[in-house]
Amino acid sequence: MTLLARAQTLHFEQPLPLQSGASIRAYDLAYETYGTLNADRSNAVLVCHALNASHHVAGTYEGQDRSEGWWDNMIGPGKPVDTDRFFVIGINNLGSCFGSTGPMHVNPDTGRVYGADFPVVTVEDWVNAQARLLDALGIERLAAVLGGSLGGMQALSWTLQYPHRVPHAAVIASAPNLNAENIAFNEVARRAIVTDPDFHGGHFYAHDVVPKRGLRIARMIGHITYLSDDVMNEKFGRELRGAVTAAGATLAREAYQYTTQDVEFQIESYLRYQGDKFSEYFDANTYLLITRALDYFDPARQHGGSLAKALAQAAAKFLLVSFTTDWRFSPARSREIVKALLDNGRRVSYAEIDAPHGHDAFLLDDPRYHAVVRAWFDRIAQELSK
Amino acid sequence: MTLLARAQTLHFEQPLPLQSGASIRAYDLAYETYGTLNADRSNAVLVCHALNASHHVAGTYEGQDRSEGWWDNMIGPGKPVDTDRFFVIGINNLGSCFGSTGPMHVNPDTGRVYGADFPVVTVEDWVNAQARLLDALGIERLAAVLGGSLGGMQALSWTLQYPHRVPHAAVIASAPNLNAENIAFNEVARRAIVTDPDFHGGHFYAHDVVPKRGLRIARMIGHITYLSDDVMNEKFGRELRGAVTAAGATLAREAYQYTTQDVEFQIESYLRYQGDKFSEYFDANTYLLITRALDYFDPARQHGGSLAKALAQAAAKFLLVSFTTDWRFSPARSREIVKALLDNGRRVSYAEIDAPHGHDAFLLDDPRYHAVVRAWFDRIAQELSK
Repeated sequence: MTLLARAQTLHFEQPLPLQSGASIRAYDLAYETYGTLNADRSNAVLVCHALNASHHVAGTYEGQDRSEGWWDNMIGPGKPVDTDRFFVIGINNLGSCFGSTGPMHVNPDTGRVYGADFPVVTVEDWVNAQARLLDALGIERLAAVLGGSLGGMQALSWTLQYPHRVPHAAVIASAPNLNAENIAFNEVARRAIVTDPDFHGGHFYAHDVVPKRGLRIARMIGHITYLSDDVMNEKFGRELRGAVTAAGATLAREAYQYTTQDVEFQIESYLRYQGDKFSEYFDANTYLLITRALDYFDPARQHGGSLAKALAQAAAKFLLVSFTTDWRFSPARSREIVKALLDNGRRVSYAEIDAPHGHDAFLLDDPRYHAVVRAWFDRIAQELSK
Repeated sequence: MTLLARAQTLHFEQPLPLQSGASIRAYDLAYETYGTLNADRSNAVLVCHALNASHHVAGTYEGQDRSEGWWDNMIGPGKPVDTDRFFVIGINNLGSCFGSTGPMHVNPDTGRVYGADFPVVTVEDWVNAQARLLDALGIERLAAVLGGSLGGMQALSWTLQYPHRVPHAAVIASAPNLNAENIAFNEVARRAIVTDPDFHGGHFYAHDVVPKRGLRIARMIGHITYLSDDVMNEKFGRELRGAVTAAGATLAREAYQYTTQDVEFQIESYLRYQGDKFSEYFDANTYLLITRALDYFDPARQHGGSLAKALAQAAAKFLLVSFTTDWRFSPARSREIVKALLDNGRRVSYAEIDAPHGHDAFLLDDPRYHAVVRAWFDRIAQELSK
């Protein structure tokens, strides 16, 4: 059965105080819901998104083929997160470029587009904004919060900021903070964007240009880190890009062209394509904001570096999932969270999925992975029906 | 005892045919030598360089403090490659920006600076040019060829192109070819350079600008891949960059600044510094050429992908060294070479050094690593003295 998605927007007039000390005076949040909220409003599942995603988590838009939500294989009728049983909420975070208030919108304080003046937002700020959306929807307590990668950080943060509102949290392909290498990759991507002459200090909207060069480089770097070495070798290896005939057929090419600027290898063609596509729709200031939210997240920081102390506030039951070939958020990072939770006597299910796809695995349809998530949500549904 | 280095240049009038089908009509090669060539000209060791290096391998230049060669900890009087016994030759490759003919020089065919028209050069081309330098120096047969990373590829290629001229080859922190991920990182770096508006299609010299933005990004990416995750966490972790007082003292900083464009973490400061420094002296066209030489190297390619068949031509005794945390040229890649050599019944010593420093380890002063290289060269010296 097809799940129809419909984007909605809520306007918030009360200013949102931010971790930085700044605040956002008024803002919109875009969201979608799937399934039906039950009578006692106890079956809501909040899904938090990662870097390049949005509130459009599941289903398709009416009349739009191929408009599946980014986690449509996971969420829907009869799927691991079953919308026949749960009321699932997808939300777009502040600072995004997909519907919620972000850098491309007008700052009500100045009447000018925010651009680079959009305030720095953190995982904690996003969670506070999400909590207000739940308030507006009349949901005091979630059945569960769920997220992968940066979304997993939000799920984890929910259990610390609003422990009484989240009895269950699924933290997938995530980490308790970024390590130096992660920050380094983010920083290179940011430098590529910021030093693009079309960035204009983040106020490129007024110049009617987009720093596409920088966005392309940022996305290419991202793609390398989302894939595993293994899957890259399997998908692309050292294959040369085939020549395309006038009729549009691709011919296998065996001989090097000896070129420094043209595409020689398939992997180059793939990365250039991904970079080009991304630069057409993603906002440069949003990229800076979201990578910084990743960099800043570090709940142990306020507890002398002790993750166990930080997680003492959590009251939820947890599901942690990691993927063996994910070198961006490696299993070791998930195990740090598991250990800190166990140190606090919390209930944790942990699955380390043997998958070749690197960090991207959390978005793919792996039967063992989906079985784990399904079983975990089945138990939640059983608890709800008691 | 201080080893004094002196750069020399040889001019070659005979055109060098290249693998691409093009040729270089006339060219200079910069080189240095250390130690004394013995009477029967049998004690010469050729050192091949990697991406950001040159003929200045060892010693210091007269009157110039801190001008040590890039492998000075390895090569010199009493060092693992002992210049009291060996006549060591450092050579700068064609296309480089450190002395040998490269893109910033005038093309004798056109009277204009080569720029992006400098022909694509391969590892095999470099080895051919190196062989001509040896001819000019009157050295028919080396005692050994030695190189790390891209230099290791050249050492390996020597054993295939001139098997009768290299009885010993040391291939350190290297690989039989680049995998897709390696090519991908090279490609992102190249795109950053080529899409910098100051690149001007590779003819930026005429515009009196340098594509520094692109070079900075390229170098930052490079640095991430040279270091291991572990050593990055140990050196930088999530430390914030300290505030600098008016008096120049650095104060530890504990609070986030909440900024997307300014430096927040130490790792960012380090990468920006490395990128800035590099962009001041490295040539953009050279960067493209050298990364392409890396991409193209693949001796198994002409043998249906069989490295064992490719290496059947080698007659040398080999030393292979890899480093456990090197994810750019991992131990598994060195083991592929070892296995292909053993399949051919060749003599191979292989050391996998447990070092935390990633790919950079091959340039560092690790006692176990240096002991392995020392012992291997001691045996060569003994063979020579028989």
